[in-house]
Amino acid sequence: MTLFEKHQARFEQAQQACATRHCWSPYPEMPDKYPEAAHAKSAGLAAFEQHLKNGRFELDQPGITGWIGEEISPYTQQALGVVYPQSDINTLFNAAEQAMDSWAQAPYTQRIGVLMEVLEVLYRDHLFEVLHAVMHTAGQSYNMAYAGSGVNALDRSIEALVYAEQAMCSVAPSAHWSRRFGSSEIHLQKTYRLVPRGTAVCFSCASFPTWNAWPSMMASLATGNPVILKPHPATVLPMAITVKAFRQVLQAAGFDPNLVTLAIDTTSEPIGKVLIKHPKTAIVDFTGSVRFGQWVEQNAHPALAFTETAGCNTVVLESAQDLDAALRNLATTMCLFSAQMCTSPQNIYIPKSGVNTPQGTVPFNEVAQRLATAVQALTSDPKKASMILATIQSPQTLALLQEMQAQGQQRGQVLLSPRPYSHPDFPGARTSTPLMLQVSTRERDLYAEERFGPISFVIACEDADDALKQATQDARSQGGLTAFLYSMREDFIAQAEKAYARAGAQLTINLVGAMPLNFAAAYSDYHVTGLNPAGNATLTNLAFVAGRFGIVQSRRPVTQDSGTTP
Amino acid sequence: MTLFEKHQARFEQAQQACATRHCWSPYPEMPDKYPEAAHAKSAGLAAFEQHLKNGRFELDQPGITGWIGEEISPYTQQALGVVYPQSDINTLFNAAEQAMDSWAQAPYTQRIGVLMEVLEVLYRDHLFEVLHAVMHTAGQSYNMAYAGSGVNALDRSIEALVYAEQAMCSVAPSAHWSRRFGSSEIHLQKTYRLVPRGTAVCFSCASFPTWNAWPSMMASLATGNPVILKPHPATVLPMAITVKAFRQVLQAAGFDPNLVTLAIDTTSEPIGKVLIKHPKTAIVDFTGSVRFGQWVEQNAHPALAFTETAGCNTVVLESAQDLDAALRNLATTMCLFSAQMCTSPQNIYIPKSGVNTPQGTVPFNEVAQRLATAVQALTSDPKKASMILATIQSPQTLALLQEMQAQGQQRGQVLLSPRPYSHPDFPGARTSTPLMLQVSTRERDLYAEERFGPISFVIACEDADDALKQATQDARSQGGLTAFLYSMREDFIAQAEKAYARAGAQLTINLVGAMPLNFAAAYSDYHVTGLNPAGNATLTNLAFVAGRFGIVQSRRPVTQDSGTTP
Repeated sequence: MTLFEKHQARFEQAQQACATRHCWSPYPEMPDKYPEAAHAKSAGLAAFEQHLKNGRFELDQPGITGWIGEEISPYTQQALGVVYPQSDINTLFNAAEQAMDSWAQAPYTQRIGVLMEVLEVLYRDHLFEVLHAVMHTAGQSYNMAYAGSGVNALDRSIEALVYAEQAMCSVAPSAHWSRRFGSSEIHLQKTYRLVPRGTAVCFSCASFPTWNAWPSMMASLATGNPVILKPHPATVLPMAITVKAFRQVLQAAGFDPNLVTLAIDTTSEPIGKVLIKHPKTAIVDFTGSVRFGQWVEQNAHPALAFTETAGCNTVVLESAQDLDAALRNLATTMCLFSAQMCTSPQNIYIPKSGVNTPQGTVPFNEVAQRLATAVQALTSDPKKASMILATIQSPQTLALLQEMQAQGQQRGQVLLSPRPYSHPDFPGARTSTPLMLQVSTRERDLYAEERFGPISFVIACEDADDALKQATQDARSQGGLTAFLYSMREDFIAQAEKAYARAGAQLTINLVGAMPLNFAAAYSDYHVTGLNPAGNATLTNLAFVAGRFGIVQSRRPVTQDSGTTP
Repeated sequence: MTLFEKHQARFEQAQQACATRHCWSPYPEMPDKYPEAAHAKSAGLAAFEQHLKNGRFELDQPGITGWIGEEISPYTQQALGVVYPQSDINTLFNAAEQAMDSWAQAPYTQRIGVLMEVLEVLYRDHLFEVLHAVMHTAGQSYNMAYAGSGVNALDRSIEALVYAEQAMCSVAPSAHWSRRFGSSEIHLQKTYRLVPRGTAVCFSCASFPTWNAWPSMMASLATGNPVILKPHPATVLPMAITVKAFRQVLQAAGFDPNLVTLAIDTTSEPIGKVLIKHPKTAIVDFTGSVRFGQWVEQNAHPALAFTETAGCNTVVLESAQDLDAALRNLATTMCLFSAQMCTSPQNIYIPKSGVNTPQGTVPFNEVAQRLATAVQALTSDPKKASMILATIQSPQTLALLQEMQAQGQQRGQVLLSPRPYSHPDFPGARTSTPLMLQVSTRERDLYAEERFGPISFVIACEDADDALKQATQDARSQGGLTAFLYSMREDFIAQAEKAYARAGAQLTINLVGAMPLNFAAAYSDYHVTGLNPAGNATLTNLAFVAGRFGIVQSRRPVTQDSGTTP
């Protein structure tokens, strides 16, 4: 049985899910539902601890010139003490190029089979190991590291394979073509080869390393391209585990493991631009800051660039059937992983006249206050706080919180001041409750850019139309992945759907209940539209995969004996 | 019956052809087979002559600030004397943006129906009018203007619609999604909208205006984007006729005609860069020079750029079953439209030891001489010459011929000197027979770039492997769309297929007979691989269409009464 056959049933279910966009996943959504969870959890923890004990993360890739590592756990604020091999960049590119040939020539179903096996191995052997590695680099909570950085990332990876297969299978492998030219008939045998574009460089980010990188790697590899993975220096371990798993499965399947290698750097000596400008770079996948993402899009040429950055995600609160329920959901989503997600809401636009409810209009100030109270309720109990806020990935975010608070005091009103909370399990954790500011639209320069971390603005607008206009303008000019609307007016909802469609932000309407507002489901929710500055690539549509390979044909007369050497 | 239903049978045949890549076209391949050809031909000529008589090409588009035109017929070397409306650029962008909304909101099958109708109208009412307009601007022969700029361009347009439909229909319009979160079940109704990227600017080139521009316009319009067409100032008339036809059909179908407008300029005051850098430009389709194409790719951001430029197309002549037949085919292809096609061969690599044939090895010098003789045989009779060489589009090409001849005399050997020939129907035509130079690989700087026009180099190589190496290096470094190989050795053919696949050039092997070697059939031959500098876009694959729209979703709880206004 080939690897493709082994995984075919699951792959076909994923194809079906992508077509109908219903809810599906082959993975249990909570850690406790993982098979033999107790054993898996302790084995994962042990594997993680073994990395710390080893100190040196062994990876048998070529061109190693030294060992570096500077990760600090947001849970302990202590160095992880793990060093990783730093390889000569040209050696990595040459090795990738060498590895490409036989990989590219394999039938794409064979490649997809091998990559499905990689996902199986990540799930079966490394999920809880990656979980702890994500916690102690990105700073996510246990459950988010399991779901968002584990099974959801695996789901998005299968999804990328589905679209890669769809793009590749739309190309016939061969054709017989005949046509009359003048008095003679020409018969041609045509062969169409799928040719990979070349080596892909995949950048993973500090706060959410696997969720974008795994699917990007899948998209490149499925279409025949090798991948050099460049993790953020703060979050290397989950990606080193990833690279090792890819290499092992590729090698076991008879391919050159140098199809996937690790390129690491330090904050003081970054290699990102060197990699992007390398003459052998053919594809760049980038997840990270808006600023560097823009640089990538402008400078990657002739490489193809796929970016997913961030933006000002907006909320419009016009009216609500159950205002408290809406505010609870908003508060939860604003707190989730301390708003260090590219889908976290930042700017909350509310008519200055207040929010309509079946019980009457609730004044603006009261809405702002009740939202702040809802956030406070979620974060005042350290145990609850630890599960939802988790930690602050970077010390820079703490500095930004201070700066924003100072500005907010001068230019608006501080609804909630940030303060550290005591993590029940990790007393040394870097934590902060959210900062909430109330401002008017005159302070646009303060909030009309991404302020990374648990920072939000409640903004008083002229009216509902103004709120929608301001909010969609944020998305159009600053980028926006998600948007959230509460309204009881169907005409306003229709207007908002249209406005956000043009602004390119994915809109969630009137959602209350247990689901985080910004939850994006693989196979169903498209992530990033490519229609505003929050990134140019969508997880996952055909455009995410179709440009990663070209079609090269050869054609020759049919009558010729093409089977033997004369 | 809707327009889509009207054209559905034809569209489905085209879908089938794209899937199997067999030979198909709804159009007769020769002018004489056009329905009521005699009448159509004379009506087309009359329509063309009426444009010259009118002097002013009326187009009811907004923002007209003046009337300009500087076209000179390569057949008469006289000014056409037609002026076209020059519109204020911002007015065109604003009008396009206004027009987009209702177009984008129409179901995509409706858009495709309207666009199929545009093609029907171009074919039925304008084909011979466009033919004469192409002759007297691009300088093509009558038959090429009919086929290459007429029915083949229509075929490639239907093909673009097929892929646009394929990309769009891969997105479900809506979904019902439910999942358990904790103890509660969330049910969401999701809607997925296809949102056009925005206004597309389509550049058409001087020598082949319709072949790339029509399919590009189709790709943009099918996916909801308006198009501003920017023709080369030397070749406006075919595109003005095009724009007028689009506008009429769009309007008749109830859409805003400003979905398609014309933006013209002059050689002395070009507006290309202004259009590309316009903040409202979302897509650029460019056909033209390598140099400007590279500028487009580097500078179009944040607009998407699709380019098709040119390169050094190569021939490797290792051995031949019938050398004379091979040389005849090469000669024909080198002469076709005076090699002013992006698919024309330029660099002919031959082992210095000669070419093997069943009758023995023919020495290098003799092969070069016999090829020159074959070219001469095609061009010495003015009537034959007029049908194959046609005219020289630009006086600059004549200047380049002189310069290359001078260099060739110094650095190699002139196999054939260019000279004007007397066109039997147009005594004032700008014509030239081809320049053929014989050089060694030491003169690489002379031939390792595109020398636009009837200029070719016969290059002596160490051996067959060297010939293949040099040829594929041209494609990789300078770009190459097509490649041509003659060999009786299956091992060498396999080696060449692999080498050209990596170099990204479409390879034609051992083709002899009535078909021009560089003929590219819609629905079967992919044009440009995107894998070398000859352009980044393929006519037509999924990547050509999939990025022209984004997917924006909205989702809301199902339980909510979404049908009525409270």
